Amino acid sequence: MLPVKGVKMRIALDAMGSDGAPVPDVQGGVQAARRFGQEIILVGREEVVRAELAKHDTTGLPISVVHAGQVIEMSEHPSQAVKDKPDSSIVVGMRLVRDGQADAFVSMGNSGGMLAASLISAGRLGRIPGVRRPALSSIIPNLTGYSFMLDIGANTDCQPAWLAQFAVMGAAYARQVLGIANPRVGLLSSGEEETKGSEVVQAAHQLLKGLGLNFVGNVEGKDIPAGLADVVVSDGFAGNIAIKTAEGTAKMLLATIKAEIKARPLAMLGGLLAKPALAAAGKRLDYRQYGGAPLLGVNGVVIVGHGRSDALAVENAVGVAINAVDKRVVEVITQEIAASQASLGAEA
Amino acid sequence: MLPVKGVKMRIALDAMGSDGAPVPDVQGGVQAARRFGQEIILVGREEVVRAELAKHDTTGLPISVVHAGQVIEMSEHPSQAVKDKPDSSIVVGMRLVRDGQADAFVSMGNSGGMLAASLISAGRLGRIPGVRRPALSSIIPNLTGYSFMLDIGANTDCQPAWLAQFAVMGAAYARQVLGIANPRVGLLSSGEEETKGSEVVQAAHQLLKGLGLNFVGNVEGKDIPAGLADVVVSDGFAGNIAIKTAEGTAKMLLATIKAEIKARPLAMLGGLLAKPALAAAGKRLDYRQYGGAPLLGVNGVVIVGHGRSDALAVENAVGVAINAVDKRVVEVITQEIAASQASLGAEA
Repeated sequence: MLPVKGVKMRIALDAMGSDGAPVPDVQGGVQAARRFGQEIILVGREEVVRAELAKHDTTGLPISVVHAGQVIEMSEHPSQAVKDKPDSSIVVGMRLVRDGQADAFVSMGNSGGMLAASLISAGRLGRIPGVRRPALSSIIPNLTGYSFMLDIGANTDCQPAWLAQFAVMGAAYARQVLGIANPRVGLLSSGEEETKGSEVVQAAHQLLKGLGLNFVGNVEGKDIPAGLADVVVSDGFAGNIAIKTAEGTAKMLLATIKAEIKARPLAMLGGLLAKPALAAAGKRLDYRQYGGAPLLGVNGVVIVGHGRSDALAVENAVGVAINAVDKRVVEVITQEIAASQASLGAEA
Repeated sequence: MLPVKGVKMRIALDAMGSDGAPVPDVQGGVQAARRFGQEIILVGREEVVRAELAKHDTTGLPISVVHAGQVIEMSEHPSQAVKDKPDSSIVVGMRLVRDGQADAFVSMGNSGGMLAASLISAGRLGRIPGVRRPALSSIIPNLTGYSFMLDIGANTDCQPAWLAQFAVMGAAYARQVLGIANPRVGLLSSGEEETKGSEVVQAAHQLLKGLGLNFVGNVEGKDIPAGLADVVVSDGFAGNIAIKTAEGTAKMLLATIKAEIKARPLAMLGGLLAKPALAAAGKRLDYRQYGGAPLLGVNGVVIVGHGRSDALAVENAVGVAINAVDKRVVEVITQEIAASQASLGAEA
């Protein structure tokens, strides 16, 4: 990602979001300010954030702090938490975007809380006109690069038209922000044929055919890592299971390989020699390089990162936000959702 | 698996099942007859099967052939195919079990066809009394061994009570056939808390709590490879996606590691030295060692293997069938489904 020249942006960054907050969040913010040259607004308990900032050389960097006295923990029930904590960093950050004081909000915190804050909190951004349900997304590595997947957990039980809207939004994001000219959109199912899958997925398949997207049909679980689609559309239940199964399988396999290498002296030497290759393979699967992924369908740029993020992941998540603002993704999605209403009819 | 001494069994084996049929199927059958000392009934086009058998030394081995003039291809629509092809190897094999001429049926063929044949074909076995829906299952490797997962594709849209029955059947199979004394049963969901997941899964969670199983609660996608449950219960849609995502991710990661090793001369030497370790890790993930998994809930032992099976996988699938017959798994499931009716009430 290159710095966006000549554009003045203000990116609100949750200083209290990650599991290790505020350390990686603040450090990532400082690094992002240095790398991208855009203003970073750190949102969190002011004295905590300033104390953390003092550990870094921030001379000349465009960093400001907005106080938010409360924190929503990972374990909290999202909608209850955003109601109970109107001064939480998540709600305050969202409000900065709604009120035009920031161009985007980035957090490594409770993703359900981000969704709830965007819809029902004191800082609610609301939905893009026509959008039935916002979707949480993720980058998922594959054999040739990566795919963009949505929904991964915001909506467990979906209607067919919601899935169709996820496809419209995902394709727009892939084209605008990920730079994929004509993204292949796949519908996650339990078989390739259009008659395979749950009733909802079968109905969504028919809707997707009429949207003018580069719809490649159903994709199966194995097709995600094989890279058969650039955008993988799913309900939040199956999408969550797919992405967590992929993460867990990669972790399990790498652990197994390491254990098998350790059990063999000669292989251990081999493992040492092969280490850079294993590290490179591991890096391909490292979520930190992708930083974060958008909450799509809300009326502003909102990027959610991994709770386990380190400073690099935070820095990259800010980069994702800057890119999304620069490419006017909310504007484009607004247009394309409006255009899709004709095909989706009263269903969406 | 040890030969079962002093028991006379007859295992029907589909000679036309695998992608490479009849070669691996017949060879696997010959190997199984030699290894287990039980009778193998090869089911398929007699002249084809006998010609294939002639390539092996079968002196003294208990192998017979039952003619079936038709073959159901992998690409065929299951229920249509079993209706159109009453003389297919899948239907004939199923009939042998129903009519008491075989103790089990094993096939590497069309799994949907196996399900349809067990329920609606001329050879229908029917369901165990009280079972609402039979489930397809699979062994899925994890960090410490393997888990048993069902359903993986027979039933895409499920009712809560069906999932509860899958749990009862899966636990019985794990205990009887896999030798796990007190199997941990997990319910696949998009979050650990019992309020997470689709409406069906949330309702199933409540039913599962009342069944007297070792129910460990919801498990997420990442918990499958981590080995947090011995039995993973799912609807066929999410289960299919999880298992195929796991397979595809493992394949993708191994391919990535190989490519990264090839790109580095020193790592290539390391890769050579580490090869036995990588092979051992790969073997842990190799479906061939598990052979096949049962179609549970039908009134007989039916084992379905992978279409890509080689002779070793076929041989092991026959071993799974022998073990299931020996451990009287159908009888035990019949009892436990009957016992669960009280808890599941009118729902099941």
